[in-house]
Amino acid sequence: MPLPIPLHCPRCGAAAQDFSGCAACREEGIGANPVPPLADLSGLSLETYPGGPWGWPSALSAPVGEPVTLGEGGTPLVSLPEGGPDGLWVKYEGANPTGSHKDRAMAVGVAAALAAGADTVAAASSGNAGAAVAAYAARAGLRCVVFTTGEVPGPLRAQIDALGAVRVVRDGTAARNAAMREAVERFGWYPLTSYATPAPGGNAYANEGYKSVAYELARDVPGFREGAGAVVVPTCRADLLSGIARGFRELRAAGLVAGVPRLVAAEPAGAAPYTAALALAGRAEQERVSVEPMPSPAFSLGESRPVWQGLDALWGADGSAIAVPTEEFMAEHLALGARGLFLEPSSAVGVAAARRVARERVGGGPVVAIGTATGLKDTASVAGAAAAEERVPELAKLLG
Amino acid sequence: MPLPIPLHCPRCGAAAQDFSGCAACREEGIGANPVPPLADLSGLSLETYPGGPWGWPSALSAPVGEPVTLGEGGTPLVSLPEGGPDGLWVKYEGANPTGSHKDRAMAVGVAAALAAGADTVAAASSGNAGAAVAAYAARAGLRCVVFTTGEVPGPLRAQIDALGAVRVVRDGTAARNAAMREAVERFGWYPLTSYATPAPGGNAYANEGYKSVAYELARDVPGFREGAGAVVVPTCRADLLSGIARGFRELRAAGLVAGVPRLVAAEPAGAAPYTAALALAGRAEQERVSVEPMPSPAFSLGESRPVWQGLDALWGADGSAIAVPTEEFMAEHLALGARGLFLEPSSAVGVAAARRVARERVGGGPVVAIGTATGLKDTASVAGAAAAEERVPELAKLLG
Ligand SMILES: [Zn+2]
Ligand SMILES: [Zn+2]
Repeated sequence: MPLPIPLHCPRCGAAAQDFSGCAACREEGIGANPVPPLADLSGLSLETYPGGPWGWPSALSAPVGEPVTLGEGGTPLVSLPEGGPDGLWVKYEGANPTGSHKDRAMAVGVAAALAAGADTVAAASSGNAGAAVAAYAARAGLRCVVFTTGEVPGPLRAQIDALGAVRVVRDGTAARNAAMREAVERFGWYPLTSYATPAPGGNAYANEGYKSVAYELARDVPGFREGAGAVVVPTCRADLLSGIARGFRELRAAGLVAGVPRLVAAEPAGAAPYTAALALAGRAEQERVSVEPMPSPAFSLGESRPVWQGLDALWGADGSAIAVPTEEFMAEHLALGARGLFLEPSSAVGVAAARRVARERVGGGPVVAIGTATGLKDTASVAGAAAAEERVPELAKLLG
Repeated sequence: MPLPIPLHCPRCGAAAQDFSGCAACREEGIGANPVPPLADLSGLSLETYPGGPWGWPSALSAPVGEPVTLGEGGTPLVSLPEGGPDGLWVKYEGANPTGSHKDRAMAVGVAAALAAGADTVAAASSGNAGAAVAAYAARAGLRCVVFTTGEVPGPLRAQIDALGAVRVVRDGTAARNAAMREAVERFGWYPLTSYATPAPGGNAYANEGYKSVAYELARDVPGFREGAGAVVVPTCRADLLSGIARGFRELRAAGLVAGVPRLVAAEPAGAAPYTAALALAGRAEQERVSVEPMPSPAFSLGESRPVWQGLDALWGADGSAIAVPTEEFMAEHLALGARGLFLEPSSAVGVAAARRVARERVGGGPVVAIGTATGLKDTASVAGAAAAEERVPELAKLLG
């Protein structure tokens, strides 16, 4: 069955037949995700953009019918007081319906599955994508199977279950991906995440939903229409990073912004392939870098290889990558709590990196960190603050 | 210290000196919450209302300075497909910054505390209010002490801790309230919830934030501007219910809606004082009703006495109360999951009641249930759906 909107590999130009990534690039050992054409935003106005992936239907290069929606997008932009004159902001994606940015993609991806006549959607995820795909599949009346490893945090597991998805648990990522591949090939289930090796990134139609983050930022962040500033994105398979890059490219092509912000991939230091890649000189070396990922409290991050479109997003936007040690992002997690923001540790990786960018003021302008998900997703890693008596000495005087 | 905006008891007219409820009514054994005057909304337009408690600053009868905000309000209105011709909707308050409707109140309440020069805010809560007050206090740079019993669900406890609040645990509600009263009286901490007996409801300035739910519904729900339909509110101390009632009264007084929707208090059957009250004939009997609350998975609901302004809201809006058995609301919790909505069980109490209202079509028009909080708040009570093999028989064929 040909794809209803053609996907072409951004690296080699080959046309794709399915959602398993570019076969030609895979032969070279490189995970690259064929993409649809950029949308033409001319005639649209940021002033009247209502937010969310369905806010500008014509901007979605995805074969969808009626929107599948739970009210995703339009998330808060929260300024941090210590941001200095140019401003440091957190785009709080935890306000999405299932509590993460993945909702923007899965709303569109499930709509594409529905339009394709699928009865079942499949996702390989031990994190937020599983909850998001479960919610939107339920909303659309499709069956949902989430392939996981045993490492799903408890609250996320409960969320996936409550949303009626079936979890298939396999031992390790390779077995998980193999099971999903088999299901996609044998049963015709519609795949909404990566399942190939090296990981090419998720369903390209679904990823169209992430462009809405760029549109919202361009509308809301002072200075972004002039092309100033930076966006810092916690990055693993780079679906969000490359989606944001595509959104800004479209905005610039239509003259809605004067330039694109610098993009920064934020990674936990124990699993930082983009940082490792950008430390090398040539693109051929960068594409082929591999690291040995270590587990960290940033459970939703941790790949061994960069995906190609993530590198491409950084190359095209004066980009960089920052690896943040565990102590630094867990201290940031605590600091964010003390500012009223309870995010998952992976989001704190982004804010910690954003703080470095803001401090160093390379290029200047406002800095925005994407706060990818609520801290309620994984409450096991909440760090303790100072002792209660230290913070509130009066407590010692309370009777009873 | 006189209150900066006078509060008067809606039952007896007495002026209040503090936030502990009406002293005269308490002498009669009745919990009633003195309130500020209704706001004058004339000249405002629902078309341009941006949502949230800060959307119409002039509508807040609260002594606040600069907004304290994390992007609360403007939550999704999600239609349920089985709602029939008039529509059944869930207002998903889980999309607020800390994942519950309490954020609307605590944003305003903390701003009032800040304007009053407080250095510490206090709340008695074993639920969502504790997380909300912790977040906004942190945002404003105030200290926060949350008085709880031992019954706080794990995720909420982690959330309160991560947001830097100090938890003071006491054995049972009476001891908890006594400790908070002592702290308020001895240390001058600013109280943002009830701490008196019988419970009078929370800080009246904070409660002004709930009016924004009414404004958003009037703007968004087809038929509400004409005064049709019903709003179903999970109810305990009725801060949300009475806040919504006040918002609609203001809208009607300004001619922005032609009438107010019917209001329905939804309660778990094991703790249903409003249902018990409305079953009685006279108001004097209704005011004095008392039940023996039983624990249920709807952990955030469960009072023995109705608060007076909750009854008043129902009396003034052709209201009613519905007691929902545990099996019914836990089945609803599962049914909501199968529609893509993961809510806390207390919210399912509201949706189950709303479904009854929609089915019986008493009065007609659209029915909206307030989905008060995300299911991530308490993942212990997630019910199991049908077995995976039953839902997805192909799984038996998957190798490996
Ligand atoms: Zn290729
Ligand atoms: Zn009174």
